[in-house]
Amino acid sequence: MSDDLKVAVLGVGKMGAFHVESLSRRTRGTRVTVVSDADTARATEVAASVGARTESDPFAAIAADDVDAVVLASPGAAHEAQVLACLERGLPVLCEKPLTTESSTAYDVVKRETALGRRLVQVGFMRRFDHEYAALRELIGSGGVGAPLMLHCTHRNPAVPDFFDSEFMIRDSVVHEADTARFLLGEEIAAVSVVKGAPTSSAPTGTTDPMLVLFEAESGALVTIEIFVRTGIAYEVRTEVVGERGSAMIGLDQNLVTKLPGGRWGGQSSPDFVARFGQAYDTQMQCWADAARAGGVDGPGTWDGYAAAAICEAGVAAVQTGGRIEVGMGGRP
Amino acid sequence: MSDDLKVAVLGVGKMGAFHVESLSRRTRGTRVTVVSDADTARATEVAASVGARTESDPFAAIAADDVDAVVLASPGAAHEAQVLACLERGLPVLCEKPLTTESSTAYDVVKRETALGRRLVQVGFMRRFDHEYAALRELIGSGGVGAPLMLHCTHRNPAVPDFFDSEFMIRDSVVHEADTARFLLGEEIAAVSVVKGAPTSSAPTGTTDPMLVLFEAESGALVTIEIFVRTGIAYEVRTEVVGERGSAMIGLDQNLVTKLPGGRWGGQSSPDFVARFGQAYDTQMQCWADAARAGGVDGPGTWDGYAAAAICEAGVAAVQTGGRIEVGMGGRP
Amino acid sequence: MSDDLKVAVLGVGKMGAFHVESLSRRTRGTRVTVVSDADTARATEVAASVGARTESDPFAAIAADDVDAVVLASPGAAHEAQVLACLERGLPVLCEKPLTTESSTAYDVVKRETALGRRLVQVGFMRRFDHEYAALRELIGSGGVGAPLMLHCTHRNPAVPDFFDSEFMIRDSVVHEADTARFLLGEEIAAVSVVKGAPTSSAPTGTTDPMLVLFEAESGALVTIEIFVRTGIAYEVRTEVVGERGSAMIGLDQNLVTKLPGGRWGGQSSPDFVARFGQAYDTQMQCWADAARAGGVDGPGTWDGYAAAAICEAGVAAVQTGGRIEVGMGGRP
Amino acid sequence: MSDDLKVAVLGVGKMGAFHVESLSRRTRGTRVTVVSDADTARATEVAASVGARTESDPFAAIAADDVDAVVLASPGAAHEAQVLACLERGLPVLCEKPLTTESSTAYDVVKRETALGRRLVQVGFMRRFDHEYAALRELIGSGGVGAPLMLHCTHRNPAVPDFFDSEFMIRDSVVHEADTARFLLGEEIAAVSVVKGAPTSSAPTGTTDPMLVLFEAESGALVTIEIFVRTGIAYEVRTEVVGERGSAMIGLDQNLVTKLPGGRWGGQSSPDFVARFGQAYDTQMQCWADAARAGGVDGPGTWDGYAAAAICEAGVAAVQTGGRIEVGMGGRP
Repeated sequence: MSDDLKVAVLGVGKMGAFHVESLSRRTRGTRVTVVSDADTARATEVAASVGARTESDPFAAIAADDVDAVVLASPGAAHEAQVLACLERGLPVLCEKPLTTESSTAYDVVKRETALGRRLVQVGFMRRFDHEYAALRELIGSGGVGAPLMLHCTHRNPAVPDFFDSEFMIRDSVVHEADTARFLLGEEIAAVSVVKGAPTSSAPTGTTDPMLVLFEAESGALVTIEIFVRTGIAYEVRTEVVGERGSAMIGLDQNLVTKLPGGRWGGQSSPDFVARFGQAYDTQMQCWADAARAGGVDGPGTWDGYAAAAICEAGVAAVQTGGRIEVGMGGRP
Repeated sequence: MSDDLKVAVLGVGKMGAFHVESLSRRTRGTRVTVVSDADTARATEVAASVGARTESDPFAAIAADDVDAVVLASPGAAHEAQVLACLERGLPVLCEKPLTTESSTAYDVVKRETALGRRLVQVGFMRRFDHEYAALRELIGSGGVGAPLMLHCTHRNPAVPDFFDSEFMIRDSVVHEADTARFLLGEEIAAVSVVKGAPTSSAPTGTTDPMLVLFEAESGALVTIEIFVRTGIAYEVRTEVVGERGSAMIGLDQNLVTKLPGGRWGGQSSPDFVARFGQAYDTQMQCWADAARAGGVDGPGTWDGYAAAAICEAGVAAVQTGGRIEVGMGGRP
Repeated sequence: MSDDLKVAVLGVGKMGAFHVESLSRRTRGTRVTVVSDADTARATEVAASVGARTESDPFAAIAADDVDAVVLASPGAAHEAQVLACLERGLPVLCEKPLTTESSTAYDVVKRETALGRRLVQVGFMRRFDHEYAALRELIGSGGVGAPLMLHCTHRNPAVPDFFDSEFMIRDSVVHEADTARFLLGEEIAAVSVVKGAPTSSAPTGTTDPMLVLFEAESGALVTIEIFVRTGIAYEVRTEVVGERGSAMIGLDQNLVTKLPGGRWGGQSSPDFVARFGQAYDTQMQCWADAARAGGVDGPGTWDGYAAAAICEAGVAAVQTGGRIEVGMGGRP
Repeated sequence: MSDDLKVAVLGVGKMGAFHVESLSRRTRGTRVTVVSDADTARATEVAASVGARTESDPFAAIAADDVDAVVLASPGAAHEAQVLACLERGLPVLCEKPLTTESSTAYDVVKRETALGRRLVQVGFMRRFDHEYAALRELIGSGGVGAPLMLHCTHRNPAVPDFFDSEFMIRDSVVHEADTARFLLGEEIAAVSVVKGAPTSSAPTGTTDPMLVLFEAESGALVTIEIFVRTGIAYEVRTEVVGERGSAMIGLDQNLVTKLPGGRWGGQSSPDFVARFGQAYDTQMQCWADAARAGGVDGPGTWDGYAAAAICEAGVAAVQTGGRIEVGMGGRP
């Protein structure tokens, strides 16, 4: 289809392969033309499934004639150089979080894009496209619960690999809550604390799982986050906002309710993030593609990626020191 | 305690024994003085547990000097004569349903009590004392959902003995819904229909379990009742009223909600009627005892017992004929 | 885009215009090329919004070279001739319900398509594409609640125009429950009864709103349907299946839960069918389009449309006679 | 009634008067014989309503011949001397929280009772008698969610008088969570922190409402408490335990669910603590009275009162210093 957006997908692990599927089967007006992955066999397999070609060098993919836009699902350490290459060529990018692995380099990306004078980078904070989060933000934004005073977030995974240590829990999981808090509260986070309690017995030595993470927003609103990634139960993401004139909660996860032998009533929690947020990922992709075909992006951008990086950096320091760490953010260019 | 209400309990099967416990341990101002049961060993055991004496003849118990009031939990066939004996002696009675086994004899009891000029008989429709039913009635009575148009009732037991055939299901289970419908709608039931579908495979031959029972109230409001007594699940009683300006539902049975391995969220339904309605039984007993000590009763009375008998009689005919049966009720004396 | 499916949309009232939007903005691989509507101004406006052309004659649209497939959202009375014209040209069709207005003509369509030897017609029973209905069917199909014995359906609209009389309620609203029941139970409906109670005071004279509709399935499973289209509340669609080994319910509509001044907790019900089933409509369209590009259809077909017509015909007779009407269906060609 | 427990109630403000009602109308085997209150008119009025006499001097009431047991609902500052007088006379006491106003004096009471060799003092932590808390403790105790790792508590009041400052919020409201945490976790609290965020605009100057309070239990389990006493909404008390093998929540407050014009579904939260915990108060009273008639008590005792005092003392220090305060508790005598 001649006027489809021709997309290169860099990195086709679980997330990247999901994006390839979305771009090829569920998103209107897009086509995957190039796939690149350090694992060339994997790249070849994924590319073949959708009629794309492979490029072993991601920068060659970014530079290719048959590429209008780029989806970055490569390892975080590769993001900085790849995003900058896309900016240089003026290509719209959907960059999985993190934008870059350090806040200083993320800030560089913000400045580079600002200098370009147009937005080209969207960061993959897909929860903003989830119906429930969108409704909660609209409720807060419309004053429906008054000024927000507290936000209680629960983020639970059934299981993770052993390399998910306390720092990784901040960088990979709490990063979503960092963006959620900013998105819902509409303000920046000023400080982060981490309170470590007793770890679950299946956590590797030295890993405190669960942890309690606290954000203090600029207005003084408090955000509590229970981060627990080895519950053995399900993928559970719940958020409650407590405002001056009401409270609201999402993530109750109640669709099909059964009553079964033994007298137990209830339902099934989402087994994983695709089951919980699959719709949000696809909606994100369609929104990005529609904007990219028009030459830009309008979802969460480099500033949001930078802010999340700065918050997580403070969070990691809080994990290490056990204290309260202020989030040091530069001014918006 | 000298001014306690001295109560004879006639019939101490599961229900009667529960009442003995309630009168002796949980109700203020009552004492069980006499216990009577055809099974004398059972009567002796129950009486001994609360310091009461036994009487083999229930009419001797009713006539005894140490009896101020009577709780009837004897078989339904014995109720008529026992209630009449109590009326003769002017004793307040709490009579488990049914008031009597036929509507004609129930009507006789109504007339006899009316002739006495004071109310002495309360029928054990304990749901009226359940917090949720009381709240639903108050909501309807206050016009909170407008004029009621439909009432949807669900009555499910996990298991019952084999003698629970289709007619027994009407007389023993649907009888509660008959009173519930009258209590909530505040009017009489004019006709009953029964629709039989496919029975569950564990139902004895000839027993249609579940059944759909329909009541038509005098106003035209419709009542649908799913009666299903061999679900294998739990004791589930749910009621929804649909009015001209809103609807309301009780019986959702959600207190303690858990998330357990396998990712299942939910809770435990009531295993039996004591778990679901224990509070209602005790509240009923305290209300009855307080009124009885003042010489009367003020809960559901003989007219309610008669109406339920007339409705169930029509229900049994509907089971037999498969048609729609009008409820023939005499005028209120 | 050269290999997009070129679609003619016949009838662009509320539903047709929604489909035009879906085909043009949210469905992958489709393009609206032709719009036809008796209201030519409306057709022109809708066509212009998506770069399509208009045809005043729907049959000219069906015959046009730039049309690969047809979406029928024209008045029900026009469906028969339009579907047959599509069959003649071998075009895949997505036909809004009803397939045709009488079961006899629907049966003719079934036979014509069968004679063709390939499936070309999908009927717009979009609930089959709703996540909750799909999950419920999967649960039933996997034996998760044992053999289904009863299905309780609630279908409520906040308000409808005055021409929604009792017959129209059957043809336009209960038709969805007819397909839902067949879809969930996996069998045909053998008989229909209608029980009329007291109408809500805002119903026009002669219209019984709400009504209770009963389906008896071939297996003996019973389906109860509360159909109430002037509740003044919201769009509420709820379904509960009661099986031999468990029960299950969908439609609880609980996403964002708030607590607001006055102490009221709860959420907002869907205001209309788009809010409740918008996802299902779009998923239906994508599924249809994917199959249509491959030259066929695989969703609910002419037989489903015929069965729904036969059930509704019996339902209308039951409304008129007040009795139980057997559904007379021909054998499957 | 000659063998009723004769109870003196000291202090008949809102709470004391509720207890007088409970002892006189809803508790089996108890009678209020003496009422004492600094407000003699109030004492006279309350005493008259239940046929009791008054004593202006509470110590005279404690010493009176017609007093078998004492309910203390006097101001907290009076508790120490009154409890000690009861201990001296060997009278069972139900003492509203706090046991005494300082942990040091509470510890003295523990030692005095220990020296007596029998338990006589029950502290009014009535939540332990609430069905939901009891079920949650049983679930935890039976290992149903594995070892508890986090406990999330929400305590919200609709409104309070202006003297409810941050310290009072700890002493009067958080004290309940202190006992709840100990009751549910089955261990002592080792440290308390308070995190202050933005106050609601209706909080008096200098009062931080809401606050986030953190308890660290000896095992390392963390307890988060949102304490917010001016929500304008309802009385909301919710507790979630997160364990190694599951989680559980109580306090969802869902009984009667309505759908009303505007399309809002939901229910009514408890307006106040009597609506939420009235059953628990009465159950507490019956349990206490049954034990008192047998000469002792078996509910939460002086050690529980002392522990709560020590936790609140640390909490007040945390409010003042903004830091983490260890709870210094003496050894159990």
